[in-house]
Amino acid sequence: MSAAEPPKAGEPLSGAQIAALVDGTLEGDAPGPFAHVRDLASATAADVVFFRSGPNEMGRPPAPSEFDALAASAAGLRLVDAGTEVGDAACVRVENPGLAAARLAQHFEWKRPLYAAGIHPSAVVEEGATVASSASLGPGCVVRAGATVASGAVLVARVYVGEDSEVGEQSILHPGVYVGPRVKMGSGCVVQANTSLGASGFGYVWSGSEHVAMPQVGGVVLGNRVEIGANSCIDAGTFTPTILGDNCLLDNHVQVGHNCELGRFVILCGKVGISGSVKIGDGAIFAGSSGAAGHISIGPGAKVGAKAAVTSDVAPGQTVAGNPAVDFGLHQRMQALVRRMARQKS
Amino acid sequence: MSAAEPPKAGEPLSGAQIAALVDGTLEGDAPGPFAHVRDLASATAADVVFFRSGPNEMGRPPAPSEFDALAASAAGLRLVDAGTEVGDAACVRVENPGLAAARLAQHFEWKRPLYAAGIHPSAVVEEGATVASSASLGPGCVVRAGATVASGAVLVARVYVGEDSEVGEQSILHPGVYVGPRVKMGSGCVVQANTSLGASGFGYVWSGSEHVAMPQVGGVVLGNRVEIGANSCIDAGTFTPTILGDNCLLDNHVQVGHNCELGRFVILCGKVGISGSVKIGDGAIFAGSSGAAGHISIGPGAKVGAKAAVTSDVAPGQTVAGNPAVDFGLHQRMQALVRRMARQKS
Amino acid sequence: MSAAEPPKAGEPLSGAQIAALVDGTLEGDAPGPFAHVRDLASATAADVVFFRSGPNEMGRPPAPSEFDALAASAAGLRLVDAGTEVGDAACVRVENPGLAAARLAQHFEWKRPLYAAGIHPSAVVEEGATVASSASLGPGCVVRAGATVASGAVLVARVYVGEDSEVGEQSILHPGVYVGPRVKMGSGCVVQANTSLGASGFGYVWSGSEHVAMPQVGGVVLGNRVEIGANSCIDAGTFTPTILGDNCLLDNHVQVGHNCELGRFVILCGKVGISGSVKIGDGAIFAGSSGAAGHISIGPGAKVGAKAAVTSDVAPGQTVAGNPAVDFGLHQRMQALVRRMARQKS
Repeated sequence: MSAAEPPKAGEPLSGAQIAALVDGTLEGDAPGPFAHVRDLASATAADVVFFRSGPNEMGRPPAPSEFDALAASAAGLRLVDAGTEVGDAACVRVENPGLAAARLAQHFEWKRPLYAAGIHPSAVVEEGATVASSASLGPGCVVRAGATVASGAVLVARVYVGEDSEVGEQSILHPGVYVGPRVKMGSGCVVQANTSLGASGFGYVWSGSEHVAMPQVGGVVLGNRVEIGANSCIDAGTFTPTILGDNCLLDNHVQVGHNCELGRFVILCGKVGISGSVKIGDGAIFAGSSGAAGHISIGPGAKVGAKAAVTSDVAPGQTVAGNPAVDFGLHQRMQALVRRMARQKS
Repeated sequence: MSAAEPPKAGEPLSGAQIAALVDGTLEGDAPGPFAHVRDLASATAADVVFFRSGPNEMGRPPAPSEFDALAASAAGLRLVDAGTEVGDAACVRVENPGLAAARLAQHFEWKRPLYAAGIHPSAVVEEGATVASSASLGPGCVVRAGATVASGAVLVARVYVGEDSEVGEQSILHPGVYVGPRVKMGSGCVVQANTSLGASGFGYVWSGSEHVAMPQVGGVVLGNRVEIGANSCIDAGTFTPTILGDNCLLDNHVQVGHNCELGRFVILCGKVGISGSVKIGDGAIFAGSSGAAGHISIGPGAKVGAKAAVTSDVAPGQTVAGNPAVDFGLHQRMQALVRRMARQKS
Repeated sequence: MSAAEPPKAGEPLSGAQIAALVDGTLEGDAPGPFAHVRDLASATAADVVFFRSGPNEMGRPPAPSEFDALAASAAGLRLVDAGTEVGDAACVRVENPGLAAARLAQHFEWKRPLYAAGIHPSAVVEEGATVASSASLGPGCVVRAGATVASGAVLVARVYVGEDSEVGEQSILHPGVYVGPRVKMGSGCVVQANTSLGASGFGYVWSGSEHVAMPQVGGVVLGNRVEIGANSCIDAGTFTPTILGDNCLLDNHVQVGHNCELGRFVILCGKVGISGSVKIGDGAIFAGSSGAAGHISIGPGAKVGAKAAVTSDVAPGQTVAGNPAVDFGLHQRMQALVRRMARQKS
């Protein structure tokens, strides 16, 4: 294979090919072929591992036991940063070993086309729907009138796409995903199983004797490369759409209420619940099971602690915790103070 | 069209027709036709907006910016209360503009029959099941033996209805809804996508060496006009049903455990979790992510704050918050006190 | 019927047959036939009830009203412990009435084969998949290449089983269950509706300009007799599997993150969220809506209080509560102290 031809997805690689793929430098002899990335403990001679001796994203260096695990690993090839000692083992030096590992693992594991182009005989495409010839519609999928499935998109199985919705190029919707009416999705999105996009928002008006539903017809707009976990819910907006910007990442069991507007690169961890009409700036992060009350604004880069209940605006870059959420440092001092007092009493 | 003939669902309307529909008084000239209700910012001359200058349900009047938005709106018609100034713009005066907007939006948006009567060829109706001729069963639906789908009911797509269950008249079940065995549903219910009604409750007996499942065969009873969000779970009762009274409203990711008994007009916001055998009185409200321990009683009209953990009975009309939940005022004072002390220390 | 022939599942039984089935002693005359276990209030003369006069699992004896309910019950037969007075009523004495009731109810209610062996014409079994002839695949099920469905397993309807996954003998997967690729499930497992097993874990590496997904190909391993509620999520591990040991019990809306390792008999109540790479020892219990941060260890037999946020290791047998979670007794004292102080201030 010449250097000009990139390796085909899923193909086992030599150490030299891996170095080229991850833009690193091979040290030692590693003919391979290698077919998987693994962790240090489970890797065999046919596997590639990764290790960073410098501090991680949290600023912490590896523990001594992790250096021991590196030395003991049976892996055939190591992706490492400049400062990592590997003894006699073959390695590929890169700036960011984790990132190199992710890219290499994508090469090995994402063996497209895992899902062949075409429409399964049991799928239902209504008249007036448009499905690209390179798209893949698995068993039991339903695409309603006016909906569009773009080129390279994959609906794995029993995915429902509602009226006038759009599934973007190369987006993947896993089994059981519900896409309601008027949901526009960009390219490269990934939605895990049993997630509901564009179900009716929770909006009612009290008549004096009963709650009258306000129709929720604003739909949802997802940018490009938005990834959403399993069993999550993004509700349709009332008159205008609920919006998630490019590159947002949402974990499982996340709820985003109607008419929220999320910027780009927002991260919502597992079980986060965002009430209606909340604005969240670029790069903000909500830790697991935290949430926000309706109609507030979370600044870009803000961080919300696990299980926090945010009830008022959060400034850009601020970190908050607690219920109701306050500045993170204050919350820590509050807890420490009460712990100390309770211990003195007992 | 004579006054005796009501407009057909979905039909665009003149200002005079709208005034008749919402029982209001037209001021100014508004021939229309109008086809949608919108918010102040996004409305065009073909749209209707709504505004209330008096205090809202929370007792708050609109902010000055909202009055500005009303003045600046390009909407062709305004639904307003008596005190709202509209300048030269055409308006319809009503007592409750939000309610009028909801009713008008229902007229515009709920263009029945969106789902045609009949059974899709890919739907499976077992022998011994009964499906009304006016009901709509979309692709991939399954109706098991002994089940009944009443007139005008809609199973949008891949809805499962278990043995001996009943889907009430005009009820709508969205894609992915699971209705287990012995679930009785009243008329006019709405269940959003991927929700599970009547899955087995969580009941086991320890044998000394393992947990032995107690069969949960009590099913579920939903009253009339119960609305349930997406990805929620109402578990089957053990021997007798789990019960939700008329007009209950549940948001997404709500769990109601086995043998709970909810009165009428109970509201459970997103991510609320109710353990088994809890009684909840008429009109009680649980805010987002709050929950109740098993076998307790929540009085009519009680209010539970966001993320609160209710562990003992709540009196009728009482408002509680915190973990464990205490009276709301006490919880507020507790938090304020600790915040003040922690700030003094630092 | 001779004593050597056990009664057929679902068959009504006489008092003598019931005594034999639950290994108890019949007192009084109870020809029956009895066909159901019921609670004290709803039982009729054709039903069996159960009662324990000694302390329950929480150490509490029945309330006086429960003794009254026993006396007033119209049930035809009582399963009771040694100390319970039944007057003239027929009873079967057993050591553990609740356990006897569970076993008897399983006999009455689990009328296999509720799901006939065979593959529904609308189910899709890919070439290279293996389905035992005694397995039951209901409408709309999909079994991908390389997957195995073992003998007696039931996929009720529209269940998806991914590449190279295994559904164990006699396991039951309810409608809407998603089983991703590389999920190995033992025998006798039960998974309720709309639950996602083996969706991609939440793992990304920041490249400096975007998050790059680390492929999550480790799959999931479930032991034998694992039971999982509705709308829950067990994520696939990154390189090695997420593991749940034998006899784990998970309720609805539970999330278990990638690469967690749960021992045997772990109980996770409704809405529990476990982040990635958490180890949980045998018999540990998480109460409703509690959670654990990633990469920590929860000892065998530990107990975590409702809504607690566990952020560091928990010792074997320890009970914790609060956010961040501390020893349960300390948490109780902290809350009591602040309540008292706040009351004095007001």
